[in-house]
Amino acid sequence: MAASQVNKTAHTFDKTKFEALLNRRFFYAPAFEIYGGVAGLYDYGPPGSSLQANIIAEWRKHFIIEEHMLELDTTIMTPAPVFETSGHVARFADWMVKDTKTGDVLRADHLVGGVLEARLAGDKEARGVAASPAAADDKKKKKKAGKVTAVRLEDELVKEYESTLAQLDNYTGPELGELCRKYNIRNPDTDNEVGEPQQFNLMFTSSIGPTGQHPGYLRPETAQGHFLNFSRLLEFNNGRVPFASAQIGRSFRNEISPRAGLLRVREFTMAEIEHYVDPDDKSHVRFPEVRSQVLTLLDRHVQESGSSQTTQMTVGEAVDNGVIANETLGYFIARIYQYLVKIGINPARLRFRQHMGNEMAHYATDCWDAEIENASGWTECVGCADRAAYDLSVHTERTGHPLVVRQALKEPIVSEKETAEWNKKLLGKTFKGDAGVLQKLVEELPEAELERLKGELAQGSAVVKSADGKEFQLTPELVTIERKVFKQSIREYTPNVIEPSFGLGRILYTLLEHSFWAREQDVDRGVLSLPPVVAPTKVLIVPLSAREEFAPIVQEVSAKLRRAGVFSRVDDSNTSIGKRYARNDELGTPFGITVDFASVQNRTMTLRERDTTDQRIGSVDDVIAAVTDLVNGTIDWTQACERLPAYDGVQAIE
Amino acid sequence: MAASQVNKTAHTFDKTKFEALLNRRFFYAPAFEIYGGVAGLYDYGPPGSSLQANIIAEWRKHFIIEEHMLELDTTIMTPAPVFETSGHVARFADWMVKDTKTGDVLRADHLVGGVLEARLAGDKEARGVAASPAAADDKKKKKKAGKVTAVRLEDELVKEYESTLAQLDNYTGPELGELCRKYNIRNPDTDNEVGEPQQFNLMFTSSIGPTGQHPGYLRPETAQGHFLNFSRLLEFNNGRVPFASAQIGRSFRNEISPRAGLLRVREFTMAEIEHYVDPDDKSHVRFPEVRSQVLTLLDRHVQESGSSQTTQMTVGEAVDNGVIANETLGYFIARIYQYLVKIGINPARLRFRQHMGNEMAHYATDCWDAEIENASGWTECVGCADRAAYDLSVHTERTGHPLVVRQALKEPIVSEKETAEWNKKLLGKTFKGDAGVLQKLVEELPEAELERLKGELAQGSAVVKSADGKEFQLTPELVTIERKVFKQSIREYTPNVIEPSFGLGRILYTLLEHSFWAREQDVDRGVLSLPPVVAPTKVLIVPLSAREEFAPIVQEVSAKLRRAGVFSRVDDSNTSIGKRYARNDELGTPFGITVDFASVQNRTMTLRERDTTDQRIGSVDDVIAAVTDLVNGTIDWTQACERLPAYDGVQAIE
Repeated sequence: MAASQVNKTAHTFDKTKFEALLNRRFFYAPAFEIYGGVAGLYDYGPPGSSLQANIIAEWRKHFIIEEHMLELDTTIMTPAPVFETSGHVARFADWMVKDTKTGDVLRADHLVGGVLEARLAGDKEARGVAASPAAADDKKKKKKAGKVTAVRLEDELVKEYESTLAQLDNYTGPELGELCRKYNIRNPDTDNEVGEPQQFNLMFTSSIGPTGQHPGYLRPETAQGHFLNFSRLLEFNNGRVPFASAQIGRSFRNEISPRAGLLRVREFTMAEIEHYVDPDDKSHVRFPEVRSQVLTLLDRHVQESGSSQTTQMTVGEAVDNGVIANETLGYFIARIYQYLVKIGINPARLRFRQHMGNEMAHYATDCWDAEIENASGWTECVGCADRAAYDLSVHTERTGHPLVVRQALKEPIVSEKETAEWNKKLLGKTFKGDAGVLQKLVEELPEAELERLKGELAQGSAVVKSADGKEFQLTPELVTIERKVFKQSIREYTPNVIEPSFGLGRILYTLLEHSFWAREQDVDRGVLSLPPVVAPTKVLIVPLSAREEFAPIVQEVSAKLRRAGVFSRVDDSNTSIGKRYARNDELGTPFGITVDFASVQNRTMTLRERDTTDQRIGSVDDVIAAVTDLVNGTIDWTQACERLPAYDGVQAIE
Repeated sequence: MAASQVNKTAHTFDKTKFEALLNRRFFYAPAFEIYGGVAGLYDYGPPGSSLQANIIAEWRKHFIIEEHMLELDTTIMTPAPVFETSGHVARFADWMVKDTKTGDVLRADHLVGGVLEARLAGDKEARGVAASPAAADDKKKKKKAGKVTAVRLEDELVKEYESTLAQLDNYTGPELGELCRKYNIRNPDTDNEVGEPQQFNLMFTSSIGPTGQHPGYLRPETAQGHFLNFSRLLEFNNGRVPFASAQIGRSFRNEISPRAGLLRVREFTMAEIEHYVDPDDKSHVRFPEVRSQVLTLLDRHVQESGSSQTTQMTVGEAVDNGVIANETLGYFIARIYQYLVKIGINPARLRFRQHMGNEMAHYATDCWDAEIENASGWTECVGCADRAAYDLSVHTERTGHPLVVRQALKEPIVSEKETAEWNKKLLGKTFKGDAGVLQKLVEELPEAELERLKGELAQGSAVVKSADGKEFQLTPELVTIERKVFKQSIREYTPNVIEPSFGLGRILYTLLEHSFWAREQDVDRGVLSLPPVVAPTKVLIVPLSAREEFAPIVQEVSAKLRRAGVFSRVDDSNTSIGKRYARNDELGTPFGITVDFASVQNRTMTLRERDTTDQRIGSVDDVIAAVTDLVNGTIDWTQACERLPAYDGVQAIE
């Protein structure tokens, strides 16, 4: 795409203008705005809905169709026992602190992080260190968390703060309380002290049915809906493992005090994959296809040492060196990277950060987050966790329904061992109530002991002792010990689960940030350089005016594009062509077709590319063919320019 | 489609076999099944998810894209004030009765309906009237509602029961209580009396944020999310009316005791359109396109007279005769019909029933339900209501945010009227505290009175009297009355809303029922004749075996179909081709391609049609071209047969 010819980073990111654009063009808006809004709830307008639908469609193609995953659609409302078993009722919580005087509630880690960052910014100011534009933006943002005042800190303290921040996600509630006392951290809005951190469960509660006796939760993730259906999924897949289930759907988290726009919301659409593997074999058959993919990694050891220094390495190296736990986890991390870059995330602002020990969810054994940099820092947008056998095991235990794989072994496993055969009648008669105890005692003896017993019995009799010192006299009439052959043709195991979990709203938001820029010659006119694959509208058809003579050709172009599967819109509103294009630059529409008098007379049209504002000219059919190929990604703008000559009448319409 | 050559109705519908198929192939299953399940909550498995996704995709095409609707995605969690305003907190409720001894909760209308139907069935049995298969099925179903015992009823009572049933949806709670007493209706499970009907609100409640002070509801419909965004939508549409917003999303209703599978659930996906029109002009520009569409109608007068007799008429006649209230409502009813038939609903089992007076939702002025017949009777699957200006008006009133259209008039409305001009200084000095009262009094006088006053003032002075008898003496110095010209160039109005609202789960379920049949030669093998447009998989590729020599051609066919946009699956499992096709008949896969030794040697393949099991043969590329055209609906099976010769080696593979 010729977008690379345009210097989109010439201007620093202007968050105010960016947010004004999203609001003006109704990408999204606070829900219930005319009722004053509710923190953490947002509605998507037409371009936001379209963008989300396209992000989802590409996700379905990239993951579900490409990997033959089994799609599910399970319910949001969930009876309490399910989340009691999964551990969410006990542990799906954040630490909150209360202002000791006003009772205001704050999230403990955000409070500590915000105040320490504000103090570090104040220190920089006192030392006269030039603030970068990003830092200035940081400062604005952090105002809420604590006024930035130019106070120089001890060098030692600066280091302590920086180290604390690098490990912020790793502190327990009591440790966060300790930090508040140690560094005298108060509620920045009131300067009051805060109390001890308390856990607040993030699940929304409700009640199912008319009696009020059946508590329910709104799911905070779609995952449990996959696990509970594991047996049906396995059967649908003809009993074969590995395989994956996938689901796109709404989830809910009752965040303590969400303030970060689409980055922290109480209701969100997520896309989750649960990939089931043999715990003894986490290789992936398609790993060679991604082995050489280079990734930016931030592993747990680096963070635990108090640093945020990333490393570049191929996913092959990362798995070989044990940085990423196994091939399947590595495969999905690489596939996540490829998906995000394909839809338009800037790869230079994308990293994978490993969870630290305390940070990891209760179910995970290894976890990497795809973090995307944006105006508020690095934000987790995709998690990729190895949940091991945790979920399937706990549900099996609770329900008695075995969520396991029964694998027919190609070669049965043959083993031999010494086995006791009892004369049951004699056993009962001789030992009465102790018969069961004795039997169990002998059968649990180690192989060597059984061999000893066998030898002694061959001599006429033997003695075994129970743990509490009771002695039993055995005879060959009572028991014989023989070497027997065992054949095992079925292996039963609980699969492990690798889970890539996507927060689609966060991806949508960071994608919009990465796509936003302004032209040097017109800094007030925003442009969203969304790739055609996700752009809400692919082609804008712009007749010179709403006059009837343009209608037939507009209809023809519209119909031909629809038949080619290209989503277009007509804008015949009563403003200049330039203004109509400006509006569509803000909506991220990558291509524009102008229909004018020449179109009517000569059947030619012009084609405009959004990022360069280049205009080319060609016959109706040539332009349609070129724009179809552009949208499908089979050619880029440079190649389109080889097909269509430049249009020199720019002044007339721009 | 050659399906018409197959007698699919030769066998009566076997609900047991049908449900076994849906369960076996994991179209859907009770959610949380391994925890014992929760009434009214279901999970969709892979084929159910795909079928739902295809139904939604076709809906998007048929409505959103075809009509340039503005799509939205709004939140489910809703703060209480919104539903207080909309009337849902007070009125979105069903009537329930409690068993006076056990406390069991029953829905009042379902209780009355079930018991009366059971008594009528018993009466038929006593009279020796041959029960039709459908009636037998009815009997089974009604067992829950009341044992069918052969008791003959008075002729008069039979008529009363039938008339009561025809109007069942029209009774208020107290009337249902009256019916229970009059007909001695008891809880059929226990034979205990039931108490007075009480209202039970169907919205799930929750609480937003950590303080517990912000009650919230899960939306029971998506509509309010549209209305609250009306101003933004109107602006996005450049201020033009009519236009429509559309949304597909999850909604929740805490049903009292759901027992009817997918037909009555507590969580469901719906698709809703809100079409905003000028209240003075409910014509529709595209109405001529649907005018001759014939519909089966059951209007409110027929029902209120105690009958269920439907009428066939064109939508044009229905609107002309005032049966359907207006063109826009008629247009959407016709479009709903066309959509349902396109995705495979049997038009002979589809009718539109008008709501009766008491039945109508609190916001509606006219409402028609698309009802689809299935094993449990006629079920509402789409509602199409004229909500008038209700919602926009109440939200405007509550929030002070005007949800109105401001229309620039092409021709300003010019009017003249007598207008009072005051000498404000003198007015205040003369009348002090009464000045305002006097001013208001004069300005509100009718035109004729003003003219009289004008005449008197021309004579020197005039008197006006207030309602409470106070007299004011006016002079020409104090006030002059003149004829002035007024020009109104903006018209402000609250639009009316026509709302088509689709329950996608109910449509999906009835579609599956209408698609199910069994072959005469093999009654145990079910077939789902889903149209290609919604079938979960379009083409099954079946290699003779999993042997490596078939792999290249399977991959080639797979890739070519993917490029043509046709979703296929490969089944190389270790069973006979016949069994693999049988499994896919149950999954509703319309076409099958067999790859065998001839394919490897001569590059020919066979193509199988699901409903007829006809097999044709052709070159790889000819078969791919034919199946692509079949799936896209550009040719039917008869035309495909003209392109591809019959295959005579059926025995070998079926």
